[in-house]
Amino acid sequence: MCRWLVYSGSPLLLEEILYKPVHSLIDQSRHARLGVDTTNGDGFGVGWYGVGEVPGLFRAVGPAWSDRNLHELAAHVSSPLLLAHVRSSTGTAVQQTNCHPFRFGRWLWMHNGSIARFATLKRDLMLAVDAELFPAMEGSTDSELMFFLALTFGLRDDPPRAVARMVGLVEAVASRHQVAEPVQMTVATSDGSTVWAFRYSTRHESRSLFYSTEIRSLRLLHPEIPALRLISDESRMIVSEPLGDLPGAWNEVPESTCSVVAGGEDLIHAFHPEPPA
Amino acid sequence: MCRWLVYSGSPLLLEEILYKPVHSLIDQSRHARLGVDTTNGDGFGVGWYGVGEVPGLFRAVGPAWSDRNLHELAAHVSSPLLLAHVRSSTGTAVQQTNCHPFRFGRWLWMHNGSIARFATLKRDLMLAVDAELFPAMEGSTDSELMFFLALTFGLRDDPPRAVARMVGLVEAVASRHQVAEPVQMTVATSDGSTVWAFRYSTRHESRSLFYSTEIRSLRLLHPEIPALRLISDESRMIVSEPLGDLPGAWNEVPESTCSVVAGGEDLIHAFHPEPPA
Amino acid sequence: MCRWLVYSGSPLLLEEILYKPVHSLIDQSRHARLGVDTTNGDGFGVGWYGVGEVPGLFRAVGPAWSDRNLHELAAHVSSPLLLAHVRSSTGTAVQQTNCHPFRFGRWLWMHNGSIARFATLKRDLMLAVDAELFPAMEGSTDSELMFFLALTFGLRDDPPRAVARMVGLVEAVASRHQVAEPVQMTVATSDGSTVWAFRYSTRHESRSLFYSTEIRSLRLLHPEIPALRLISDESRMIVSEPLGDLPGAWNEVPESTCSVVAGGEDLIHAFHPEPPA
Amino acid sequence: MCRWLVYSGSPLLLEEILYKPVHSLIDQSRHARLGVDTTNGDGFGVGWYGVGEVPGLFRAVGPAWSDRNLHELAAHVSSPLLLAHVRSSTGTAVQQTNCHPFRFGRWLWMHNGSIARFATLKRDLMLAVDAELFPAMEGSTDSELMFFLALTFGLRDDPPRAVARMVGLVEAVASRHQVAEPVQMTVATSDGSTVWAFRYSTRHESRSLFYSTEIRSLRLLHPEIPALRLISDESRMIVSEPLGDLPGAWNEVPESTCSVVAGGEDLIHAFHPEPPA
Repeated sequence: MCRWLVYSGSPLLLEEILYKPVHSLIDQSRHARLGVDTTNGDGFGVGWYGVGEVPGLFRAVGPAWSDRNLHELAAHVSSPLLLAHVRSSTGTAVQQTNCHPFRFGRWLWMHNGSIARFATLKRDLMLAVDAELFPAMEGSTDSELMFFLALTFGLRDDPPRAVARMVGLVEAVASRHQVAEPVQMTVATSDGSTVWAFRYSTRHESRSLFYSTEIRSLRLLHPEIPALRLISDESRMIVSEPLGDLPGAWNEVPESTCSVVAGGEDLIHAFHPEPPA
Repeated sequence: MCRWLVYSGSPLLLEEILYKPVHSLIDQSRHARLGVDTTNGDGFGVGWYGVGEVPGLFRAVGPAWSDRNLHELAAHVSSPLLLAHVRSSTGTAVQQTNCHPFRFGRWLWMHNGSIARFATLKRDLMLAVDAELFPAMEGSTDSELMFFLALTFGLRDDPPRAVARMVGLVEAVASRHQVAEPVQMTVATSDGSTVWAFRYSTRHESRSLFYSTEIRSLRLLHPEIPALRLISDESRMIVSEPLGDLPGAWNEVPESTCSVVAGGEDLIHAFHPEPPA
Repeated sequence: MCRWLVYSGSPLLLEEILYKPVHSLIDQSRHARLGVDTTNGDGFGVGWYGVGEVPGLFRAVGPAWSDRNLHELAAHVSSPLLLAHVRSSTGTAVQQTNCHPFRFGRWLWMHNGSIARFATLKRDLMLAVDAELFPAMEGSTDSELMFFLALTFGLRDDPPRAVARMVGLVEAVASRHQVAEPVQMTVATSDGSTVWAFRYSTRHESRSLFYSTEIRSLRLLHPEIPALRLISDESRMIVSEPLGDLPGAWNEVPESTCSVVAGGEDLIHAFHPEPPA
Repeated sequence: MCRWLVYSGSPLLLEEILYKPVHSLIDQSRHARLGVDTTNGDGFGVGWYGVGEVPGLFRAVGPAWSDRNLHELAAHVSSPLLLAHVRSSTGTAVQQTNCHPFRFGRWLWMHNGSIARFATLKRDLMLAVDAELFPAMEGSTDSELMFFLALTFGLRDDPPRAVARMVGLVEAVASRHQVAEPVQMTVATSDGSTVWAFRYSTRHESRSLFYSTEIRSLRLLHPEIPALRLISDESRMIVSEPLGDLPGAWNEVPESTCSVVAGGEDLIHAFHPEPPA
């Protein structure tokens, strides 16, 4: 079990998003409420779009709650698009290359959940990764492998379909190995312009996921909060669990969906795995 | 808040004590039940008496629950006397020199609790440390400073009195600075032969502490557990919280006491701070 | 022995300064040429002025040459004023709180060298630190203690005099303890506007230190290097060892001096310790 | 480039082997003499046979020279058979799962050298690993993959032939990808009773490797050294570079050989890769 968040909107110091909310992601690293476990202390990561061709990536193996460098970075770096993750290992090694988000070129990817009996399925799944992409895998997690399968299936061209094909493959390989209900996932991925977020599990009981209410609506709902007037209209967050208790601020993402956030617009589509031909 | 345990008895592999109990110290690093916080993920340490003049010491800054080297060590090293600690920082840096137990010559020391408003009192307390001992302090915690004050006050000759003088000094310095209820502690210390455990706080509401029932009595109480026939009579444990739910196995250490364990005997004395002359 | 650099000038991505030069500081962490030792692998740090009241600070205990987060940060953060350091411990613990630069408010401080027989002198020197400042010391190095002594003696008002008083005190305390030639230092400190760099040792054989030639002069010297036309006139560097072999680019800082760099001007003054009254 | 050693003989405290020699492996982590690089600071590991079914394994990502836990372990654990390694990464991540020795059941394996253009060859080589063994690979190095290929080819039954087939496969796959001179290796492996050490490279210019002279002969050569009377006759070491300058103590292992050490006997055989059928 892990916790993650995506922020897209007007450029903000990372600490505004990562540290300042009452039930921030940093707080969730120690006191998660909706997760399988309360502690997400097996490493963390943040990827942000800014200067340069590729997004910045800061990942470390200790708990986020005590990492001073993360706090320094968050107090000095701004970004209009940010993915952050606190990890609770489901068995794979606690090491930097297993920390989310994963990066390939301009793409970032992070995941909460797991592939059931991953050790049994791992070899067959790795063989399906494109030979060109293969050497870029550095870690040992199911999450990174899902990313490289999605890249193999065209993530850079058609993200929803690539993820559908990736899940379809995992379910097909699992079926061949008599592994039931193999996929449990909330996933976020981005190319720096658009964010795609998926909520899906084979048995349709997926990990929690929430999206923030449109800022315009929130302002009407809460005229008593002046800060809402300062946030730009197109700002959006998608989070494993709400960052606070503001009534009306958070909405559950429906089961088996793909959410697309870009340019202040967000759409939620149904998500169905696509089995291999 | 932290959690600790002491084991004294027939030599055992460390993993028998640290990993195998249902609610082991390693489990407590992630899911403490009686502490201020459930997570003790800010480093850990184990000190054990074995070959060599000084006890072995293994301390690291990550969470105990995911440390593979600790598990390896525990599976390959035996000891008749062991102190182990999982840390939850009350603000000082997460670094090896702040992990318990602390060592000086043959002596080990570990602590759960804190000195209130330590930043205010620290300088005056450091000045009270013997000049010869001063350079051996390496970390920045109240706990290590309490150890070096106790050493200054004769820990190696008369441990209960040295700890009483240390607490007396802290309370006197606190009073001078208008700091109320300064001391909160459970402390264990050993020279490799005897273990002394203290439970004390200025307001007499100290952190939890338990000692194990005599093995002979436990055998009578639980004839259905064959394992109890294998543990030697003199084996004893003192722990921040019970390692399991066996009825009759654990007894609360009374408030304001010093427990002394040596050679299969254990005695509990009243503990009173001794103010500076 | 350590290696450090200061950059002051037009805002640059940190990687331009830290990674791109042929014999960059990162290269010096593994292959120093002029130091006591070739390896500076006991941690590193970088402090930079940017957004926010206080400078950013990134410090870690592993070698700089393999730290991915440092490289990421350097590729995404720009600054007009930067202090960076790679450490070779002279005995004190390898921990984040012992990594340079040290920070207090807007001030940064870093040091190469040592106080001879520091363990012997440490207590007396700590007692001289202002009681208000005392709790802010977190590590165990001579370098951090020199910073807090300088702060005690007025670093924020008159840096050259405060450092002169600090050195004077160390030499006086050393003399009292029969410690010969106690001070060996190159030090850089800044408040975000001005940089002060000191080269001094009691026996006047100080660690190496170099300053960069004025950009205007370098352009005349090397019309064949177009890049020099892009660097602003006021850019300056002070470094433990030259970052490359460009003839005429680097000048040795004289013994027993204080260099002051601000607003494109730099001045070198004689430096004399000021003994305690 | 890395440095390693194997010790087999009368049980000794690890520190006698790892720390006490003049040019010990710990010294080589910082000041190697015969290697491609002087610094081997990208992690380290030690595996030792003792109590329990599987050997103990202690691996960490920092430099060996400053690791306090390694020193503590070495001062408290004895073993009759020990493999130790200090790493200099050739590009793969600095993480615990990439530190040598690698372990599978009772087997340990460590390597100095590399597979040329490993990224290009990795996928084909991974596909050749037995599906049962596949999930046990945790890291990303060529070294670990060589181990699992050797296991696939029967390391547990016939080590010299399994390693010959592994090298033969690497050379065949490299040839298919137009990669010249792919293998550079000194390898040590053990099952706890016997040690096999290989020195081989495709172009027959392998990394340095030495074995210690028989203790009986050394005693005759150096009657002036009383310590030699205390070491048991069957003690042997194989090392990347000599641990000191004692004349007559160290002999170069010939090119393209497999050395077998067991029960005080050692034999050196020619080693030839076995191409795939």
